[in-house]
Amino acid sequence: MYFTKSFIPILKNNPTEAKIKSHQLMLRIGMIKQSSAGIYSWLPLGFKVMKKIEQIVREEQNRIGVQEILMPTIQSSDIWKESGRYEDYGEEMLRIKDRQNREMLYGPTNEELVTEIFRSSIKSYKSLPQLLYHIQWKFRDELRPRFGIMRCREFYMKDAYSFDLNDEEALFSYNKFFLSYLKTFKRLELSAIPMAADTGPIGGNLSHEFVILAETGESKIYTDKRIFEVNSDNTKLEKKSLSVLRNKFEEFYAVTDEKYNEKDFMEKVNDKYRLNTKGIEVGHIFYFGDKYSKPMNASVDFKGQKQFVKMGSYGIGVSRLVGAIIEAKYDDKNEIMKWPISVAPYECVIIPAITKNDDSNLVKANKVSNLLNDKNIDIIIDDTDENFSAKMKKFNLIGIPFQILIGKNTEGDLLEFREIGKESQKLKINQIIEIINSKKK
Amino acid sequence: MYFTKSFIPILKNNPTEAKIKSHQLMLRIGMIKQSSAGIYSWLPLGFKVMKKIEQIVREEQNRIGVQEILMPTIQSSDIWKESGRYEDYGEEMLRIKDRQNREMLYGPTNEELVTEIFRSSIKSYKSLPQLLYHIQWKFRDELRPRFGIMRCREFYMKDAYSFDLNDEEALFSYNKFFLSYLKTFKRLELSAIPMAADTGPIGGNLSHEFVILAETGESKIYTDKRIFEVNSDNTKLEKKSLSVLRNKFEEFYAVTDEKYNEKDFMEKVNDKYRLNTKGIEVGHIFYFGDKYSKPMNASVDFKGQKQFVKMGSYGIGVSRLVGAIIEAKYDDKNEIMKWPISVAPYECVIIPAITKNDDSNLVKANKVSNLLNDKNIDIIIDDTDENFSAKMKKFNLIGIPFQILIGKNTEGDLLEFREIGKESQKLKINQIIEIINSKKK
Repeated sequence: MYFTKSFIPILKNNPTEAKIKSHQLMLRIGMIKQSSAGIYSWLPLGFKVMKKIEQIVREEQNRIGVQEILMPTIQSSDIWKESGRYEDYGEEMLRIKDRQNREMLYGPTNEELVTEIFRSSIKSYKSLPQLLYHIQWKFRDELRPRFGIMRCREFYMKDAYSFDLNDEEALFSYNKFFLSYLKTFKRLELSAIPMAADTGPIGGNLSHEFVILAETGESKIYTDKRIFEVNSDNTKLEKKSLSVLRNKFEEFYAVTDEKYNEKDFMEKVNDKYRLNTKGIEVGHIFYFGDKYSKPMNASVDFKGQKQFVKMGSYGIGVSRLVGAIIEAKYDDKNEIMKWPISVAPYECVIIPAITKNDDSNLVKANKVSNLLNDKNIDIIIDDTDENFSAKMKKFNLIGIPFQILIGKNTEGDLLEFREIGKESQKLKINQIIEIINSKKK
Repeated sequence: MYFTKSFIPILKNNPTEAKIKSHQLMLRIGMIKQSSAGIYSWLPLGFKVMKKIEQIVREEQNRIGVQEILMPTIQSSDIWKESGRYEDYGEEMLRIKDRQNREMLYGPTNEELVTEIFRSSIKSYKSLPQLLYHIQWKFRDELRPRFGIMRCREFYMKDAYSFDLNDEEALFSYNKFFLSYLKTFKRLELSAIPMAADTGPIGGNLSHEFVILAETGESKIYTDKRIFEVNSDNTKLEKKSLSVLRNKFEEFYAVTDEKYNEKDFMEKVNDKYRLNTKGIEVGHIFYFGDKYSKPMNASVDFKGQKQFVKMGSYGIGVSRLVGAIIEAKYDDKNEIMKWPISVAPYECVIIPAITKNDDSNLVKANKVSNLLNDKNIDIIIDDTDENFSAKMKKFNLIGIPFQILIGKNTEGDLLEFREIGKESQKLKINQIIEIINSKKK
């Protein structure tokens, strides 16, 4: 792809309306464009990153046996009246009247709708467990949307739901998601910590927020630092192994604001391990038993007895993760972003020095690009005639993880290559391919 | 995947509320579930088919150089007032007031929003052409939603937009989409004919509907049968070649209802070639010049002069295509569906005869499944203990294109294999793999 053919509208300076670095960067490099308060369009660069995140989230859901469905954005108010949440939800719910004057709403979450799907299809305990997810746009009519896509109104979310026969099985489902979330965030190169959390309007008595540390985060967290060392690599998708993992995490105090208790924190955490900081919520899981199944009459036949199913729900903010990764990876002092290669909009950029009278470096760039494309490396070429240092500055912001610079330092078959933000080295094309492909694994 | 673990709620009989065969089948085999009038949830079987269609549509857009973005579902009324369509659009537009009492709407189409994105980013004619698309949910508040997802309220659509300097370049863009649409529908094994069509609320003076023949279609069409023979295989993505293709199609009279003129039809089409029938619209392309760019002031600098860009828009009904394929492929007399392998929810089903006392055929099925999975063939096993003929009846409806039957006719390393609806033959597993993989190309 040529930069001049792509739709990447770059701003010269940081937009003044943006207060945090993810919002600044996303506007500056043309990842998003605001269309109205708290509502954004995703331009090609932002779209590519979000789609790659979505695919990683999807793969990790499929891996634990959750089945993908897709529920609509517009829901009838009827099922929310059944569950009792229609009045509770307040003004954040976008309420709509259609042309027939029926009360509709733009779904802020889907417990009711998925329960309705379940109850009309599943009748026997033999069909349990059922794990379903979808990745769909949601709307929450925030009073003061801010921080770009971090706290916006229309957002993209993966939400999953589990249906089980009893508490024991339901906790097994909960723990599957617990492990799956750790793996998902790890693939995004984020260190997300599960913190005991409040259940809010979703309900229930067991809940974890997955939080990444960031000064600009809106969640306050209180934790024992040693929780960062808990390792889940060898955990298996089995009841016992998952339960051992949960216990390992629960050895350490780790809570969000609403669950915080100063006395506990002081008693349970030695001074040298105490960490009181801020973070960004990127995932949230809930166990709420029969909170929805009972009022909505979602039951199965268990040996002649009617039994309400036990449910949990499990969310990941797909669009928010784009911002969260920037908050974690962007060095705004030096204006260098580096995307994890798993979600980078391109894997490598080729930056040739081009003048009006000499495009020989562009010819070289094209040759190199073809060779890399043949090895399935996704390339963008900066074919503008901006000066060389302006191009490098621009691509330091765009954050493609690898750069090939083609200018006066290019000699024979040696190319100037660097991982973004690091020193460049002179390498042959095969060595470059090897380095990039080894990082993709 | 085991059938008993999948979320595929099958109905015993055709649902009485469904009037056309796609609606009947989709409800019967649990592809969709209605959540409210004209609004559906997509269950795993339907979701898989729709996602595969979406991916084919995406690949064919990318192939002609259209860049993918994603615009939000909720739009501000302001841009619709700028274009002058806010009042025109009528009650099909779902109008919404947010908590601040701002006038919003659920986008039925995106000409205004994409024009706003274009005008704020592109300033010079050197950046033209720009071709942008997105695949996003839309809402049209139909007075009488019917026929399942064929005429529903919330639907999934690919809409693309082109921006060019002048009519000649704009027609080149139009023709690129013209060819791309023929290729897209061909990959879906649909024979879709471009018909001169009315432009309706989109505007402009050049438009084609892509229509597949179906008795249940809502478009009336009048055409010269020879148009079905026009071949686009050797057309290149070049101005001249595309223009030759358009001319080849225009040799034959082919119009929708609104464009129909009896005198023309009689004069231009010899009796023996006349076809007057019904069809389903699966795509629609429009050229409308500066209809939006002028009132919305979307212009570029062309050698010191301000010039309004010339625009077109290009839609494919992604969710509707699921139904359209069923209308084209489902033999409802014999209750046999056959999905094109490019969009089939699974590529092959293994149906073992299982009784309460004997699951040896299931053991065989698992072995066969592992071998096919290793060759990237996507399998479902019917592990229920229903009787053998009930299983075959069920899978004739579900429409997986290939079946392996494991029962009393299985001898040694010979398996009973058939393409759905055809005679079975006894083949070795390697022969089966070869047949399936040859159809996947």
